[in-house]
Parts: sequence; C-alpha cells; structure tokens
Amino acid sequence: MKKTIVIVGLGLIGGSMALALQGFEEYEIVGVDVSQPTLRYAREHHVADYVCADATEVLPHADLVILALHPKGITEFFSAFRDIFRPGCVVTDVCGVKRAVADAAAVLPDTVDYIGTHPMAGTEFSGINNAFAEMFQDTHLILTPRPESTEAHVALLTRMAMYMGCKDVYRTTPEEHDRLIAYTSQLMHIIALSVCDDPQFFDCKGFEGSSFRGCTRVAALDVALWTQLLSMNAGALVEVIDHLRDNLTAYRDVLSSGDTALLAEKLTASSDRKRKLDLTGPDLLA
Amino acid sequence: MKKTIVIVGLGLIGGSMALALQGFEEYEIVGVDVSQPTLRYAREHHVADYVCADATEVLPHADLVILALHPKGITEFFSAFRDIFRPGCVVTDVCGVKRAVADAAAVLPDTVDYIGTHPMAGTEFSGINNAFAEMFQDTHLILTPRPESTEAHVALLTRMAMYMGCKDVYRTTPEEHDRLIAYTSQLMHIIALSVCDDPQFFDCKGFEGSSFRGCTRVAALDVALWTQLLSMNAGALVEVIDHLRDNLTAYRDVLSSGDTALLAEKLTASSDRKRKLDLTGPDLLA
Repeated sequence: MKKTIVIVGLGLIGGSMALALQGFEEYEIVGVDVSQPTLRYAREHHVADYVCADATEVLPHADLVILALHPKGITEFFSAFRDIFRPGCVVTDVCGVKRAVADAAAVLPDTVDYIGTHPMAGTEFSGINNAFAEMFQDTHLILTPRPESTEAHVALLTRMAMYMGCKDVYRTTPEEHDRLIAYTSQLMHIIALSVCDDPQFFDCKGFEGSSFRGCTRVAALDVALWTQLLSMNAGALVEVIDHLRDNLTAYRDVLSSGDTALLAEKLTASSDRKRKLDLTGPDLLA
Repeated sequence: MKKTIVIVGLGLIGGSMALALQGFEEYEIVGVDVSQPTLRYAREHHVADYVCADATEVLPHADLVILALHPKGITEFFSAFRDIFRPGCVVTDVCGVKRAVADAAAVLPDTVDYIGTHPMAGTEFSGINNAFAEMFQDTHLILTPRPESTEAHVALLTRMAMYMGCKDVYRTTPEEHDRLIAYTSQLMHIIALSVCDDPQFFDCKGFEGSSFRGCTRVAALDVALWTQLLSMNAGALVEVIDHLRDNLTAYRDVLSSGDTALLAEKLTASSDRKRKLDLTGPDLLA
C-alpha cells in the first residue's frame, strides 16, 4: 500500500520540500494549506500529488507529517489535531528553533513520534511562488530526536534529507541546536538589521561591495516569523550578542589606540581561526 | 604612436586589471613586479603584453600608471619614482583608502596628475594566480580626482572602468570615500573577524548556513594589507563600530525585555530600510 507524506504549510520551505520529495521512495506527496491562491498555484505547478485545505481529510492516512508553519502555528496545530494523527506516524517540523516546539509537542499522544528537524536552507523571500526543488542542495539538515523517538523514524528522516539533496544530517538535542543556531543564524540576522540601522545606510549605493550585500541580505526578513524565532530563543541570543559586542569593542579599542603592531596581532589571530575552519558551501542560495 | 598603461604590482587586483584591459583603446599593457615567480607566471599566461622587474625601464613611456600595491608600497613608490613619471601622465592607485594615498601623492611634480581609484572588487585570495579578467564585472568603481585633475584624465579612467566591465563609476572626494568605505567595507571585515572570535566558532560546522558563510568569508584576510587599510582610516572606522554597537545593544535590550510587540516594531523598521534600498549585484565574487 502506498505510503503518504503530508506537508502542512505550502510556503517557501513546505513548497520546496514538496517539490524536492517528488519520487521519494514511492511516497505520495500531499500538501495542506488554508490559502486558496496557494492551493491554486500548487495545482497549476504540480507541487504535490494532491493538495487540500483541510488537514482532517488527509492526516489519518499520513505516515510522515511535515509541519512547515510558523512556531505558533505549529503549537496550535499540535493541540488542534493531536487525536487526528495516525498512530505510529512520525511528525516533524522545520522551525528555526527546536526547544519551544519540542515543548509544545508534549501534548501529542505516545503513539505519535515527534522528531524536530531544521533544514539549514532558505532565502529572504516567502510564499509558494518562490519555492524551488533545489533549495536543499548542498545544505545541512539538523535532527533533534527525543529519547523516545525510534531509530527507524530517524533513519527515514535522514533518507528524506539526503534525497532532497542535503549535504549531511547532524543529530543533536533541542537545547544544543538552539544554542548554536543563536550564533550561526539568528546573530547573522541581528547583525544585518543593525548594519541597516546605521545613519549612512541610504548613502551607500555605489560604495557597497559583495561583502556588504552579503551581510545585509537577510535583513529583508519576514517580521512575523522572526519575531517568534528570536523571542523564543532570547536567552541564547542575548548571550551571543554580548560576545559579539565584546569582540567588536576589542577591535575598536585597538584601532583607537593607534597600536598597529597589536592590530596586526589581532588580525592574524582572528583570520587564522577562519582559515582553520574551511566552511565550503553556497554563500548565497540560488 | 601606441600608448602605454603600466601596472605596478601584479597581484590579485593588478593582475586582474591587466587581464581585463587587454585590447583597451590600443593601449599596450605593461606589468611591473619585483617577484620573479610572478613575472614567470605573467609571461606564461600572457597576463600583459610585456612584463619586467624594474619600473625605471617603462615608467618614462607610460601614459597611465596604475599602482596596485599596498598603501605603504605606494607611498614609497611616489617618493622613489617622482622624477621618473612622464610629464603629462596620469597616475592612479587602487587602494581601499584614499585620503592617506592622496596625501602621499603630494610629493609628485605638478606635471603628473594623480587621481585615486577604488575598484569595489576583490576576493579573499591574493596573488597573480588568483587573478581573473571577470573580476570587475558588474562592480562599482570610485574615483577621487583632485581639484587640479583634468577632465580628460577623469574621462580616461571612466572609460577604462567601463571597459573592464564595471557597472558604474562614482566620483567623490577622498574624505567622503574613506567615511563611506569605513561603513560599507571595513566594518564588514571587523564584523567577520569578531564573529570568528566567538568561543562557539569551532563548534559551528554543520550548523552554519549561507548567511554565516557569507558573513565570515572575508575574515580570511591579508593581514599586512588590512593592518594598513584599517589603521589609515581608524577615525571613521571607530565611529561606525560605535554605531553598530549601539544598534546591537538596542536589539539585545528588546530581546532581554521579552517585549515581543516592541521587537516586531524594530524588526519592521529595520527590514523596511533594507527593502527600500535594493542592492542588486553579486553577493559573492566568482
């Protein structure tokens, strides 16, 4: 009997996953979204094998459920549909925070296996019309299984990630994920926003290079989503911002002192750290 | 009679300019470098029409001289060769700071026109073996002519830039250039270095996405060059670092307060600034 993957939320990520999972291990790909324009687009562009507006219709048949909604939407979905999930299924989400979602998943019955996922992919755009199948090429995917989660389900999600084109899959706890993501992702957004808040921002056209464009790119963000992601990880994020301010201050003070020998020392130490950790991979998604 | 462009310093930028200027308005392209391996590479790869180690040999014939050296090297070159430049020629440099180089150019005789240039292009690599002709495609080039500079020379440098593939040419004063570059370029390097100085840096592999790679890319910098560039513009750079710290603090404090409505307000304001200024162009040079 054919198995079914249900993707709830056909936005940028959900839509891209649907496209990327076409042909995965004979799973039928089913999409759910409450927006009629989104469903229309999905049908016209064959984003999934079947789409509908009501999760109740398809959830009882789902072997794997992927919740591609905002964190608050996921929390509400868990509560509203806890008794509709098929016993034995595995439910995952794709949120950029994992602890808060894992806590919300506590309302699910024991027969439903929740395993958090975070595909390290995305662009500053949103909506199904910006979804594309190659979104996950060469990216990392993070899994945060619970102690109770089964290895078979972890293996399924791993195969799913590799099929979508991910470079690798990292396994960790929700807390560790949130701590690292505060640094590697959320801080990048705070930096971009803070750079754009500079009084000189509107004078810069013609004087900016690739590093400025690259740094500020993610500032054009989805406010509703990022208000949730940042506030749900405020503790860890405040800590990394404090570290960054300390490090900026160290450079600022050396520059102010005019001690070029010390400046050269600091530049050597910092750049050596970067050279030690070669981070190959796309700087800019398509 | 054939005209001559002499490029002193066949590193990443000088080498790329030599390649990009092949066939420009019937100018013969001559390269000067003191490194034998560089000259050998240049000859093997036809980087210029002619290369040599001694500037004295070719400078008297040069109509346009491009100094692609570190700022200190340029200062020394001005002093050493002030009487060798051909009267009526135009001399330019490609440094990332313009005030300090313009000051050093004061030793040149009145018969030599110095006009600062800053091609907003480059990669984190160095050396002629990393030079490529497409370096300047779709990039900005900044010109900082002196009041005494001739329009004919400004026009020549403008045509040169457009021939190399630049998107546009901006004209400003050395002071204004340095003030803006502190923000658009130098600050990006200080940010990259400061992010790499975080204690979590070496834990991040597998958790980083395109924004982290994009932000930290320029941290792998040429220490000797950047010690000069940053210290020569310390005043303007300290000021922009202070602004950044203030803006980061504003976000840090809102996050710490738990006031999500205020957080949403700030995110809206900052992201709106970014959306207003669409910075199209490469995020990452080839």
